[in-house]
Amino acid sequence: MTDKGSIAATGEFKGRLKEGVYRAIYARRDIRSQFLSDPIPEQVLARILHAAHHAPSVGFMQPWDFILIRRHEIREAVHAAFLRANAEATMMFSEEKREQYKSFKLEGVLDSPLNICITRDQERFGPVVIGRTANRIMDLYSCVCAVQNLWLAARAEGLGVGWVSIIHDRDVQEILHLPRHVVPVAYLCIGYVTHFPEKPELEAAGWIPRLPLDKLVFCDQWGKECKTEWPALHQEIITRKDK
Amino acid sequence: MTDKGSIAATGEFKGRLKEGVYRAIYARRDIRSQFLSDPIPEQVLARILHAAHHAPSVGFMQPWDFILIRRHEIREAVHAAFLRANAEATMMFSEEKREQYKSFKLEGVLDSPLNICITRDQERFGPVVIGRTANRIMDLYSCVCAVQNLWLAARAEGLGVGWVSIIHDRDVQEILHLPRHVVPVAYLCIGYVTHFPEKPELEAAGWIPRLPLDKLVFCDQWGKECKTEWPALHQEIITRKDK
Repeated sequence: MTDKGSIAATGEFKGRLKEGVYRAIYARRDIRSQFLSDPIPEQVLARILHAAHHAPSVGFMQPWDFILIRRHEIREAVHAAFLRANAEATMMFSEEKREQYKSFKLEGVLDSPLNICITRDQERFGPVVIGRTANRIMDLYSCVCAVQNLWLAARAEGLGVGWVSIIHDRDVQEILHLPRHVVPVAYLCIGYVTHFPEKPELEAAGWIPRLPLDKLVFCDQWGKECKTEWPALHQEIITRKDK
Repeated sequence: MTDKGSIAATGEFKGRLKEGVYRAIYARRDIRSQFLSDPIPEQVLARILHAAHHAPSVGFMQPWDFILIRRHEIREAVHAAFLRANAEATMMFSEEKREQYKSFKLEGVLDSPLNICITRDQERFGPVVIGRTANRIMDLYSCVCAVQNLWLAARAEGLGVGWVSIIHDRDVQEILHLPRHVVPVAYLCIGYVTHFPEKPELEAAGWIPRLPLDKLVFCDQWGKECKTEWPALHQEIITRKDK
């Protein structure tokens, strides 16, 4: 007998429970410019950290750690590392794209009240871990799943999250004093926001369009079209007004 | 003015909307043994694929493709590749662990009605992509976020998902005819289930315990304890009975 209310219940989530999942997925944004300085209550922080800690992990390895960064000097050092990496990045774009590239705000390290670095301990419960045999970076995948869990839980809490990707891992490694077997996976900026943009910023700016799903789905092998339409049935669910 | 019901609404999700997000995160399982053969309706499949497609992606690169695998011969080839990789893996465990290792069922390739391979196109909108400059594998991270979105949406739909990690990428590459610039990220087995286990199987089997969160959280730098308790306040929310 299945207890319909228990965590092990079979069957789909009903009504607003299911709607909440899709709404978090669709309303999540990568936040850089909209941070407020309001502090994050400890119980809210506890909930998003537990959400991350309940990500899937290869061999139940739980390879993640979470470094909560509030100290200004440390965030200043991270921001300086971003500026260096971004100067390199700017020069990689062609001249006609470079001005628009420079117009994008690409991090919120100093504007957000909290930074979180999610790291990967490559030796936890090792050296041999179930499922990390043919593919030695499965534990990296687990850490990224933890990032996404945290991101979605944060969205449900009204918290914006931005992933700082323009930074060298070796700089984060040094600034946060990570031991050699632990490497940074994600450096995140977190805080309440003035608003969540309706669309991803690069889509809204016309940098790159959203690809149609039917061009991304194949049947049985690469290149074999499915001839299916994949209607986005959820749109009405996730944009309807709260009662 | 913020429309409280729109996707851009600021503030936390209310009531069961928020509960749904946490419930999906806590009730998600890596499924290997509980698959039913019931087909997955096309509109449900459309919803979980759109959920994956709305993952965050570096530079809005959307580097993912989705190969839906139903043909038996292809799944047989994948299963054979798993058996080869698992034979290698078995020998990596010490003799005293090997018998227990062999007792675990580690994939559901043939038992599930649908397999999905999520791949990574390293050249999409390239060669220079915003945010994939200091770190060239940011697009891999995007693909893993898509996996986790699909996994959580599937859980809300009552669908189990299992990630087949014991397989060599080169085998999947060849079986699915992937071009050189596209690599497999996740090979997933998907279907309705008899039940979702209450706990992760390796935790329930006593292979590895769940780590306490307070041992995984540091403040400002590696090794600096936070002296915070991180209460798991959500447990009552996600296990309470439906009304």
